[in-house]
Amino acid sequence: MSNDIFGVIKKDLALLETELLASMVSPVELITEIGTHLVKSGGKRLRPALYLLSARSGPVFDAKRVMPLAAALELIHMASLVHDDVIDHADMRRGTLTANAKWGNQVSILSGDYIFAKAFSLVAGNSYDSRITTRLSELVCDLSSGEIIQNRGIYVAARDIEAYYGRIAKKTANFLAVCCEMGAIVSEMDEDTMHRLYTYGYSIGMAFQITDDLLDITSSKKKIGKPAGNDILQGIVTLPVIRALETSPDKQELEAIITNRGMTEEMLQRALEIVKESDGITFAQGRADSFLETARKSLPGTLPEKIRQAYCKAADFIGHRDF
Amino acid sequence: MSNDIFGVIKKDLALLETELLASMVSPVELITEIGTHLVKSGGKRLRPALYLLSARSGPVFDAKRVMPLAAALELIHMASLVHDDVIDHADMRRGTLTANAKWGNQVSILSGDYIFAKAFSLVAGNSYDSRITTRLSELVCDLSSGEIIQNRGIYVAARDIEAYYGRIAKKTANFLAVCCEMGAIVSEMDEDTMHRLYTYGYSIGMAFQITDDLLDITSSKKKIGKPAGNDILQGIVTLPVIRALETSPDKQELEAIITNRGMTEEMLQRALEIVKESDGITFAQGRADSFLETARKSLPGTLPEKIRQAYCKAADFIGHRDF
Repeated sequence: MSNDIFGVIKKDLALLETELLASMVSPVELITEIGTHLVKSGGKRLRPALYLLSARSGPVFDAKRVMPLAAALELIHMASLVHDDVIDHADMRRGTLTANAKWGNQVSILSGDYIFAKAFSLVAGNSYDSRITTRLSELVCDLSSGEIIQNRGIYVAARDIEAYYGRIAKKTANFLAVCCEMGAIVSEMDEDTMHRLYTYGYSIGMAFQITDDLLDITSSKKKIGKPAGNDILQGIVTLPVIRALETSPDKQELEAIITNRGMTEEMLQRALEIVKESDGITFAQGRADSFLETARKSLPGTLPEKIRQAYCKAADFIGHRDF
Repeated sequence: MSNDIFGVIKKDLALLETELLASMVSPVELITEIGTHLVKSGGKRLRPALYLLSARSGPVFDAKRVMPLAAALELIHMASLVHDDVIDHADMRRGTLTANAKWGNQVSILSGDYIFAKAFSLVAGNSYDSRITTRLSELVCDLSSGEIIQNRGIYVAARDIEAYYGRIAKKTANFLAVCCEMGAIVSEMDEDTMHRLYTYGYSIGMAFQITDDLLDITSSKKKIGKPAGNDILQGIVTLPVIRALETSPDKQELEAIITNRGMTEEMLQRALEIVKESDGITFAQGRADSFLETARKSLPGTLPEKIRQAYCKAADFIGHRDF
C-alpha cells in the first residue's frame, strides 16, 4: 500500500522506520526485543502516512520536529493492537506471532503500557503545540473507551446504527482524523484547511472501519488471515448485521444466533448466509462509499497536487480493498 | 496516614478527591462507574501528597495549575495498579474488589489504558513546563519496565542486590522522587532544592518498597490483607530472601523452594522460616533505615517548617509501618 499510494513521502516513511526502531531501544533487553519484533512485523503505517502527507502540505516543514510525532502516532496504534491481541486471545497478526503468543499476556500488557508511554515521551521531548499533546491523550482515551463500548455490547442484537457509528468513530475514524489534523498543526496551515483535512481523515476512517467489518463477513481466511465471521463469533455486531436484523426475512433466526454465546460453527455459517442474502452488504458498502465521497470532497483545493493525489488514492484504496 | 502526616495540605487533598472523581466522569457510563469505584476504593494518596507538599514550598503556588498534575500522578498510580491486578489475578485490594474481579480482565486492561491517557490529558490541557510532561511519560516507561524486569526474573534465585535496587527504583522510588521534583518545578524552586527533594523522594521510595517487601514476609494476612509469603509464592525474590540466599546455613534448601514453580504451602512456610531465621530481615531493615536516614538528611533547610515536619513524619511512618 505505502509504496503505491504514499510514494510522495517515501523518504519520510523510510526515516519513520528508523525512528520507530530507535524508539524501542531500551536498557531492558526484553523491551528492545519485543519492540523490535512489533516494528518489524510491519503494518501499513497508515496513521503516520496520513499525518506526514498533511505535514508536507503547509508552509512549514521541519523533519526533526515532524518525525517524532509520526513515530508516536504509530506507537499508539501499535500499543493498542498489543492490548487488543491480549483481549482477543489472538495468536497471529499480519502473518507473525502476536506479542501475547510469544511472550505471554503479562509481559504484553506491560509492553503495551510501555509503548503508550514511549509515544508520549517522544512528543513531550519535542515541545509541540499544546493542541498536539491534548489531541494525543484524548485519542488514547477515545481508543480505549471505543473498545470498552464494543466489549460491553457483545452478543446484543443492536439495531442502533448511530451507536455503531459512534463506536467506530472512537475506535478508528477519530484517530485518522487527528493524524491529518496534527500534520496541519505542525505545518502551520490555516484553520479552514485543517478542518477540511480533519473531515477527510474522519471520513476515510469511517469507510475504513466499515470496509473492515464488511470484509470480516465477505472475505476468506486466505485473504484476511482469519476465518470469515470472526466478529460475529466474538459477539461483535457490525453494520451489515445491524442492517440484516432490520430487513432480512430471517431476522429472528439471525438474532437468535448472534446473541448466543455458545454459537457453533454451523450456526455461524448460517448467520453469514442470512447476512449475505440480505441487503446488509450492499447497504454497508453504500455507507462506506458515501463516507469516501465526503472524504474526497473535503480535500482542500490548496493542497500540493501530489499530496492531493495521494490522499485521493488512499480513499480509492479503501473503497476497493478486498483484504 | 494522610490525616496525621499531611495535615498541612489537608485542604489540597480534599480538593484532590474532587478532581479525581471529576476526571473519571465520562459519557461512557461504564468508565464513570469503574473510575468512581477505583477513586472511592481509597489509597494513601502518597504520590500526590508528596507532590503537593513540595508544590506548597516554593515561591509560587497556583492551585488551579497545581491540582491537575496532583490528580494525574494519582491516576498514573491507579492505572498501573489496575494492570498489576490483572497481571497478578488479584481479586481484592484495600479491602474492596479489584476492577478485574468486578468487570473482568478485558475491560480492566482497557480501563487502565483509559486512566493512563486521562492522566496525560489532564497535564496536556494545562500547558505545564515541558520537563513535567517528559518526566511523566518517562515515569510510566519506568513503571512498566520495572514490572517487566520483575516479571522476567521470577523463580530465579537472584543474588544481585544492585539488580534488586534497580528494579525497585523503577517500580517505586523513581515515582516518589519525581512527585517531589515536580512540586518543586511547578512552585519554581531553585535547582539545588529541587535536587534535594528528588533525593528525599527517591530515598523514602526505596525504603517504602523494601519495607513493603519485608512486610510480605513478616506480616500476617490480617494486617496486609494477603497471606504472608505472597511474593515468594509468585516467584518474586526480594531483599530479605536475596540476603538469606547468601548467608543462611539452609540456603540450598531455600534456593530449591523459591525456584520451584510447583511450590506447596508447606514449602512456602519452610522458606519463610529459613528467611526469618537468617539475618535477611535485619539486613533489609537496616537498608531501609539507611535510605530513610539519607531521606531526612536530604531535606532542604529552606523548606517551610510545617512542610519539613510533614516530610519527616512521612519518613518516620515508612520506618515504623507494620501494615
